[in-house]
Amino acid sequence: MPKISERGCQMPASPIRKLVPYAEAAKKRGTRVYHLNIGQPDIQTPDVALKAIRNFDQKVIEYSHSAGNESYRRKLAVYYQNIGIGVDHNDIIITTGGSEAISFAFKVCLNPGDEVIIPEPFYTNYNAFALAAGVKVVPITSSISNGFALPDVSGFEKAITPRTKAIMVCNPNNPTGYLYSREELMQLRDIVLKHDLYLFADEVYREFCYDGNTHFSVMNLEGLEEHAVLMDSVSKRYSECGVRIGALISKNKKLISTALKFAQARLSPPSLGQVIGEASLDTPPSYFKEVYDEYISRRDLIINELNKIPGVYAPMPKGAFYTVISLPVDDAENFCIWLLEEFNYKGQTVMLAPAAGFYASPGLGKNEARIAYVLNKEDLSNAVKCIEEALKVYPGRTI
Amino acid sequence: MPKISERGCQMPASPIRKLVPYAEAAKKRGTRVYHLNIGQPDIQTPDVALKAIRNFDQKVIEYSHSAGNESYRRKLAVYYQNIGIGVDHNDIIITTGGSEAISFAFKVCLNPGDEVIIPEPFYTNYNAFALAAGVKVVPITSSISNGFALPDVSGFEKAITPRTKAIMVCNPNNPTGYLYSREELMQLRDIVLKHDLYLFADEVYREFCYDGNTHFSVMNLEGLEEHAVLMDSVSKRYSECGVRIGALISKNKKLISTALKFAQARLSPPSLGQVIGEASLDTPPSYFKEVYDEYISRRDLIINELNKIPGVYAPMPKGAFYTVISLPVDDAENFCIWLLEEFNYKGQTVMLAPAAGFYASPGLGKNEARIAYVLNKEDLSNAVKCIEEALKVYPGRTI
Repeated sequence: MPKISERGCQMPASPIRKLVPYAEAAKKRGTRVYHLNIGQPDIQTPDVALKAIRNFDQKVIEYSHSAGNESYRRKLAVYYQNIGIGVDHNDIIITTGGSEAISFAFKVCLNPGDEVIIPEPFYTNYNAFALAAGVKVVPITSSISNGFALPDVSGFEKAITPRTKAIMVCNPNNPTGYLYSREELMQLRDIVLKHDLYLFADEVYREFCYDGNTHFSVMNLEGLEEHAVLMDSVSKRYSECGVRIGALISKNKKLISTALKFAQARLSPPSLGQVIGEASLDTPPSYFKEVYDEYISRRDLIINELNKIPGVYAPMPKGAFYTVISLPVDDAENFCIWLLEEFNYKGQTVMLAPAAGFYASPGLGKNEARIAYVLNKEDLSNAVKCIEEALKVYPGRTI
Repeated sequence: MPKISERGCQMPASPIRKLVPYAEAAKKRGTRVYHLNIGQPDIQTPDVALKAIRNFDQKVIEYSHSAGNESYRRKLAVYYQNIGIGVDHNDIIITTGGSEAISFAFKVCLNPGDEVIIPEPFYTNYNAFALAAGVKVVPITSSISNGFALPDVSGFEKAITPRTKAIMVCNPNNPTGYLYSREELMQLRDIVLKHDLYLFADEVYREFCYDGNTHFSVMNLEGLEEHAVLMDSVSKRYSECGVRIGALISKNKKLISTALKFAQARLSPPSLGQVIGEASLDTPPSYFKEVYDEYISRRDLIINELNKIPGVYAPMPKGAFYTVISLPVDDAENFCIWLLEEFNYKGQTVMLAPAAGFYASPGLGKNEARIAYVLNKEDLSNAVKCIEEALKVYPGRTI
């Protein structure tokens, strides 16, 4: 029997999904499970997008251009121009989800053995795409104690080696909900220029910035035109996770033309997803206002309620729809499994994502969990109540 | 300015698409271009699939299971069982096109530096996926002189090294239209077992077998349960190239569970494509009969007409909808460019795919081109007429 490859053996199971069998068992026992573990919003997809599918009238579902339909790219460029990001359709490759944009960037910009610096905790699949591309992730640690702010310049300088080719940020951040300030991004700019690196930015949560804070894109960092690479996606903006449409964007022509060769190899991004993505650009402002208000009220509710639980600390996120909380437990993964296997409160329990999987440094995040506030407020209240009651009786409680 | 990666620099431009700028220029001059260069059928997508899109009634387009919707996998397993391939839904991972199935197989089964043997000429993107995965393609040459039959055992034995991990075939073959016989597949089975290799089979043209020949799947090679890996796609079967839905299939449990980790990293295959793929399984037999009859008549027409042109040889393909022809020219790529740049016959010309790009061995296929018979018969006739007239006046003609 032939062997599985080493990278196959090393590929980690998703920390968001590894507890799914426990959740399924709980549901089979009749327990209601509130899913705070995964960023699948319950928000409705815009009507204009759903209508575009129902009106689909092509007779042959053909390959599109490998970079995506030109009509979509042109209209998407206008979306970016309207938010102050000066790109045109030739700077854009439509990808199969934000996932493929990340994967293309790693393969186009880094050789096997090269290093990308990523502040941890980070979106765990960055690790998977790096591993698949033979790229090494070098974490620099941000801490819950200061709300997961970016480490200072010396933190980055210490991590830079001759193999460092890129720094990657997610802004607003998944899993922490942290929003990078203009000053933090200017600091990154200086480091990137000094060491001639790429700066990758996953900005899929751009529209989710709270408390009057505004988003600042790496595409607007002066002098970084050849260095900045933007990864984007329609998944969260329009609640279209399933359509698998994203984008890789850069003013670096060589980078885009090389990425196009990878794009040509897989022929084209999904045609129907592009129809939906293009139609979604006509989503009325009222939709976003409603979604924004909903997330704000969810955030305020869950953060306030969580912080009332003795021993729990939940930083107030400034963006996205996640937060990483600390729990008064020895091992958050054990706690999360216990929640699903042994606990219920009035027939209900909750599923969290243990945060250790979002850190690359072993041992970090052991008493933390990521929470996605993607459920309605009543469900969120019930979920928090479950955590509160669970911590009263959990045998592994530390404080 | 930071550098592009070495694999980015090495990634070849698609031979199917590299002449596109010449075709666009020809169209701008008002010349009608018949596209025989790309396997984009003009056949209509089944009504049952188009209806499923128009009836799509979900309110939130959510992530699906990373392996694809269970309902789709269960129904797809029945499709395979009905054609004698005994798999169940746990042996199937739904992928983003057949492309992703190939990419997963390379990454799961081969380490960087490992080798996969592929009979050439072969589908050129195998090269791109291998390069992206750090895998080395070792070609063994099949020849137009015997209709592109599989090389004999000694040909394979010579190519096998300690780094060989897999043999890959496309059956029926793109680009040659060759259909492997049961005997040829039994020979492969023996080699694979002797050297403990994987056998990858791209069988996306399974339904396109002509002249009473039947398809024999690697999944039915006895004793190969742990070795055989099937890559499939809805693209050609239902003329759904744009939906980007394929499948990776194997009875090897470890292989599937490892591939699932790669699948989880990219979250899910396209949701709408899965709706279409699942609905397409109800396509009535009359659809396939009609498509089959159409392809047979196209094939007979184009092969007969091509063989009437002095100096042209077109083997009669037994499957798929391609053939590789030899041309009386010094360099088929130059000829193809000349067809687009300098030639027209009554305002029409033709675009072919130079075959050299389908060979990994330098210098092979220089006087060959791939033809896809995916246009209606009138267009095919006109296209062949263009080739005939062009060869009368082409300055680089050799015979």
